[in-house]
Amino acid sequence: MKHSPLNLFILLIPLLHSLSHATATVDQAGLLTALRRAKMQSQGEHTFNEKWFDNMSFEVDEETTDRKMQDDLMKDGLPGQPFPVKFKQFAGYVSVDKSTGRSLFYYFTEAVENPASKPLILWLNGGPGCSSLGVGAMVEIGPFGVKSDGKSLYAREFAWNKVANVLYVESPAGVGFSYSNATSDYELSGDTRTAQDAYTFLLNWFARFPQYRTKDFYIIGESYAGFYIPELADVILKRNTDKKPFTKIQLKGIMVGNGIMNDATDNNGTFDYMWSHAMISDETYQGLLKFCTSPNFNRTKCDLVQFAVDEEVGTIDFYNIYGPVCSHSNASKKAKCAQDYDPCELSYVRNYLNLPRVQEILHANGTNIPYAWDACSEMVHSYWKDSPTSMFPIYKSLISSGLRILIYSGDMDAVVPVTSTRYSLNALKLDVKKPWHFWVDDLGEVGGYQIVYEGLTFSTVRGAGHEVPRVQPQRSLSLLKKFIAGQF
Amino acid sequence: MKHSPLNLFILLIPLLHSLSHATATVDQAGLLTALRRAKMQSQGEHTFNEKWFDNMSFEVDEETTDRKMQDDLMKDGLPGQPFPVKFKQFAGYVSVDKSTGRSLFYYFTEAVENPASKPLILWLNGGPGCSSLGVGAMVEIGPFGVKSDGKSLYAREFAWNKVANVLYVESPAGVGFSYSNATSDYELSGDTRTAQDAYTFLLNWFARFPQYRTKDFYIIGESYAGFYIPELADVILKRNTDKKPFTKIQLKGIMVGNGIMNDATDNNGTFDYMWSHAMISDETYQGLLKFCTSPNFNRTKCDLVQFAVDEEVGTIDFYNIYGPVCSHSNASKKAKCAQDYDPCELSYVRNYLNLPRVQEILHANGTNIPYAWDACSEMVHSYWKDSPTSMFPIYKSLISSGLRILIYSGDMDAVVPVTSTRYSLNALKLDVKKPWHFWVDDLGEVGGYQIVYEGLTFSTVRGAGHEVPRVQPQRSLSLLKKFIAGQF
Repeated sequence: MKHSPLNLFILLIPLLHSLSHATATVDQAGLLTALRRAKMQSQGEHTFNEKWFDNMSFEVDEETTDRKMQDDLMKDGLPGQPFPVKFKQFAGYVSVDKSTGRSLFYYFTEAVENPASKPLILWLNGGPGCSSLGVGAMVEIGPFGVKSDGKSLYAREFAWNKVANVLYVESPAGVGFSYSNATSDYELSGDTRTAQDAYTFLLNWFARFPQYRTKDFYIIGESYAGFYIPELADVILKRNTDKKPFTKIQLKGIMVGNGIMNDATDNNGTFDYMWSHAMISDETYQGLLKFCTSPNFNRTKCDLVQFAVDEEVGTIDFYNIYGPVCSHSNASKKAKCAQDYDPCELSYVRNYLNLPRVQEILHANGTNIPYAWDACSEMVHSYWKDSPTSMFPIYKSLISSGLRILIYSGDMDAVVPVTSTRYSLNALKLDVKKPWHFWVDDLGEVGGYQIVYEGLTFSTVRGAGHEVPRVQPQRSLSLLKKFIAGQF
Repeated sequence: MKHSPLNLFILLIPLLHSLSHATATVDQAGLLTALRRAKMQSQGEHTFNEKWFDNMSFEVDEETTDRKMQDDLMKDGLPGQPFPVKFKQFAGYVSVDKSTGRSLFYYFTEAVENPASKPLILWLNGGPGCSSLGVGAMVEIGPFGVKSDGKSLYAREFAWNKVANVLYVESPAGVGFSYSNATSDYELSGDTRTAQDAYTFLLNWFARFPQYRTKDFYIIGESYAGFYIPELADVILKRNTDKKPFTKIQLKGIMVGNGIMNDATDNNGTFDYMWSHAMISDETYQGLLKFCTSPNFNRTKCDLVQFAVDEEVGTIDFYNIYGPVCSHSNASKKAKCAQDYDPCELSYVRNYLNLPRVQEILHANGTNIPYAWDACSEMVHSYWKDSPTSMFPIYKSLISSGLRILIYSGDMDAVVPVTSTRYSLNALKLDVKKPWHFWVDDLGEVGGYQIVYEGLTFSTVRGAGHEVPRVQPQRSLSLLKKFIAGQF
């Protein structure tokens, strides 16, 4: 895979918008503009290289690990957490390159009940550059959320460790507490190195947590992890053929939520979504189709059209178009009855994870990272080296391997909207095994719609945004349970 | 206008779905099927007849009315209402045809403060056959809603009589408490007779409430009232040219919410909406486009496709696709945080309006109507005689008259969705005065999007369903205030 510097200043930064509160307009609209523009400008340049795997190297602690599982145990749990909790939590660093000191930070929550009988989930957020700890664990699926005081935690009713053991990794190095001692390492950030490091991380983590090596293993995440997840699965399946005990990972399936998949169809779906959801004018819609799609992409004219998108749409959350916006003075109050989450929660998370006591308990202190913990890293995405235009080649390979694949989509997201994923899956041209139908959640309500292809299932989650479990926690846990139970 | 019996068994019955609770699937999906099918089967047959007005006759109490305003006053307000309230309420019958005893029932709420300085609004629900009292006043914009006990009322925070005097008419005869002594009258139900009677009602009502004759007058409503409202406005403007004092009505503007407008574009927009909101499969979408649109409409094949729609979509509320459904056992509880309304409220309204004491206070007793009050009348819509395919001719006439026109659309409605209205307005080919832009509500949030044409404004209401004020009460009151203030 080529490593020429793309210098995509902003490639795809889901969740980053949540960081800024005073200037939500610029952030949200600006983000959409930036990510589409960057991807479109590079379109066709970065096709998938079948040999990408050959360029990877893995630094594995085959026999021993410098640190034991018990060393990472957080004996009293997280500071400010509600008591009592019945499950164990672990956190710490796993080295992925000793020469540069590159290490990934993880947080691991055992299942609430009988963890030995439960599968293991690796959760990955996107970006590139966003934290699975801060976003995934803290505002989406982890056992605790952070209260507005930035110090104390509340129990999340539909936490995913009610059905599985869940591992959150801040990936790649440069995100959250993950780091390298050689700052030049960050300049090599990209899809290839992310997959290589994530895989190395896994092998070393299993060495530290050997009893999880035999558990059914799932990789789940969202947004730009729509690339991370199939890429990591591809590496795992290829390495599994080595038939060495320490490289054998019991990967059973992947779930990808509102994930990018294939640039051209993802872009077209976004334009259609914005028009059909009455966000933009007819003229702007026509302009997007005319100037912002291949092969007639016109940078100057597309820039102007994207500017029109920003102007027209106004201050709404592109990631949840009917949801509350944090910047609004009473968003926090309104959230109680509009959609049941606090749009400002990520700012409480930032405060919490920067408390020295919290970092100490997480075993994240003492690394002397010269900047505060943040939910997304601009540095990482600004250096991003490689990002293919399509995941189709890897999906085809994964499907032929028999891996269980669930693509899901919250239908209130305008960033990687449900129309994009429908177009992408159509372009993938899979045979239909069970036609389009509704699926029913644990409450007996229509949870969304589903189509089962040969080797891949697509489910929408009705009334959910980009961060599906945040907006529809109960419904997304229903979906997870069904997937783990092998119901599709 | 021709009066051949169309016998459209079901033409357009928004809100009727709310009546049945045990069989919500059949109702909701069945309704969509029925209304689309009936309209499509009759397509092209019922074009607008320019001479429709010439066939009308008006029976006006020019000098006196048999009943005075004070006779209709509900001195102690409605049974079970919260005290104190500062405004007067009136209710009663107004004759529109003495020969057959045809009379329309109205409910009138004066503005909370200083009614003499406030405009007068006539609110009309659609159907055909649905009640402005039961739906409009009681679950959307009236001062009171009905509690789940079916006996007591609560105050509605964003009631429209906070900014205007509001008149609700059960129209046409056969709807709610409105009736005729000659049952054969019901067989003449249709657009023409509805407009004629509504106009006659207004003149006679003004004779009873003379101080409202000089107030700025607005007609507002939704759904099938997308036909009622421009039709009534057309009659008013034509009769205003008579220059007789008693026919002079100070009509200043109309507001139409999720209203039908033009069959072909309304239908196409609905198909697109269902696909882009992930409700139906690609195949069903293609089938709708192929067999359910003019000129290739194929009844048998379209029926099959409509059946597929029902099967695929499942039990959701077509009128508010992300909202709660009454039939679900815990809908009432969930509604507190999903969208802040009780989806079962219309059943409480039915219980309330059938209480003998309530009918007595409303001056609706003593008419010996041989059936219970219901929110929508199947009898009325089953006899529906005439319904044009398009409102464009009347809109063009109204626009040239200088009437202020606001079309608005809740963007979560799949029955007359925002895409339909966009297609319809495009087909109307008006000049753009102010291009597409967001509008800001009283909370400072993006209330939706707006385009100002020469003579007509279109506003979306973000996060609202078919019954816009029910789902987004605060936002819709913001929109009303801006319209009355002449801000667009």
